[in-house]
Amino acid sequence: MKPLDLLQQSLHKRVLVEMKGGRSFRGVLDAFDQHLNLVLSSAEEVVKDAVTPRAGLTLVRGDSVVYISP
Amino acid sequence: MKPLDLLQQSLHKRVLVEMKGGRSFRGVLDAFDQHLNLVLSSAEEVVKDAVTPRAGLTLVRGDSVVYISP
Amino acid sequence: MKPLDLLQQSLHKRVLVEMKGGRSFRGVLDAFDQHLNLVLSSAEEVVKDAVTPRAGLTLVRGDSVVYISP
Amino acid sequence: MKPLDLLQQSLHKRVLVEMKGGRSFRGVLDAFDQHLNLVLSSAEEVVKDAVTPRAGLTLVRGDSVVYISP
Amino acid sequence: MKPLDLLQQSLHKRVLVEMKGGRSFRGVLDAFDQHLNLVLSSAEEVVKDAVTPRAGLTLVRGDSVVYISP
Amino acid sequence: MKPLDLLQQSLHKRVLVEMKGGRSFRGVLDAFDQHLNLVLSSAEEVVKDAVTPRAGLTLVRGDSVVYISP
Amino acid sequence: MKPLDLLQQSLHKRVLVEMKGGRSFRGVLDAFDQHLNLVLSSAEEVVKDAVTPRAGLTLVRGDSVVYISP
Repeated sequence: MKPLDLLQQSLHKRVLVEMKGGRSFRGVLDAFDQHLNLVLSSAEEVVKDAVTPRAGLTLVRGDSVVYISP
Repeated sequence: MKPLDLLQQSLHKRVLVEMKGGRSFRGVLDAFDQHLNLVLSSAEEVVKDAVTPRAGLTLVRGDSVVYISP
Repeated sequence: MKPLDLLQQSLHKRVLVEMKGGRSFRGVLDAFDQHLNLVLSSAEEVVKDAVTPRAGLTLVRGDSVVYISP
Repeated sequence: MKPLDLLQQSLHKRVLVEMKGGRSFRGVLDAFDQHLNLVLSSAEEVVKDAVTPRAGLTLVRGDSVVYISP
Repeated sequence: MKPLDLLQQSLHKRVLVEMKGGRSFRGVLDAFDQHLNLVLSSAEEVVKDAVTPRAGLTLVRGDSVVYISP
Repeated sequence: MKPLDLLQQSLHKRVLVEMKGGRSFRGVLDAFDQHLNLVLSSAEEVVKDAVTPRAGLTLVRGDSVVYISP
Repeated sequence: MKPLDLLQQSLHKRVLVEMKGGRSFRGVLDAFDQHLNLVLSSAEEVVKDAVTPRAGLTLVRGDSVVYISP
């Protein structure tokens, strides 16, 4: 199995997305592609200790993703 | 569905575009391509707390985009 | 319509080109390609508050472009 | 033999993944692809001296990987 | 016309090449390719205010080029 | 001859691998590919003056390599 | 003529290779490819004012090269 096949198992589940530059997101993984572009729903953005809810669907560019974890 | 299919739902709606280097835009998403190059109308650029309106159509290079949110 | 189709509308008009590293250009957009390499005429380069006129045609590498605005 | 063939020998074994920006992971290598995207299980994230366990499967983007070692 | 067609007009003429990291070159543009790799003759390298003449042909890697101007 | 053909001569010999960010490795070059992904055995990692032995096979991502020397 | 054709003229001659991050090499150019990966013999590495001779063949990754000059 390849990494992106395993990411399939996280679809529609809540994930932590750690990004370059000290930003992270928590949200439900609604879609992804082979570049690791992601769509999150019910997302919260965390920068240092500041949490900002993001309504609707957030599209995260794969280029800025460091890791994705449950 | 893939991330860029979901972005289709934001066409002609107001979005927040967070960019590398602490810059962000708010504006109406008029067009995008697979690199996440974007065209925004009625856009405002935000750097720290300074807001600058940008008349006409602003083309944002996908390479600098971190995420797009409603 | 795609972003680069819309950029077609700015051809031969004055644009602001914001670049990585705090540099920007104002000039007439004479040409562009799919990498966002640009040719500007009657250009002025702005770094912080220092404005330098650039005679002739300035070729800007797309890789350094952040956004293009009227 | 090519580097990624040799990485095959580390499958299902515990590895250290050193990443850009001073972050590292220890975990069991469950999958990888040619971009060095990795899936780790039973992973611990280490930033400076702070160790954070990561439940489930962590997908690490290859772009951020510096080296992988037993 | 495309940007690289217009660069053709600068062949064998003196150009300023501004590069990433605060370095620039002045020299005669003897060759270029689609990556903006350049060959300059009679070149001077400028870093801050220090000017260093470079004998012979200097090959500049396109990846480091920010803009080219007469 | 091309650079990677010459690297063939260093196979199974001890090399110094200088990497971005002030890290280097010394070890026996067991494999490489066209991206300069490397496998080193009997490797030591050097960061500033701290030397850490790395047991087994270390896979170094080519993207972080600056140069390879005997 | 294209830039890499002109580099052909520097084969087996002594060159200066300026690299990202304040490092440079002087050595005889024994091979290069289209990525500007280089092989240097009789090379000296210069970081600030510290000169380190590098025995044998040094393979420099093109990605780190800024310019090559006689």
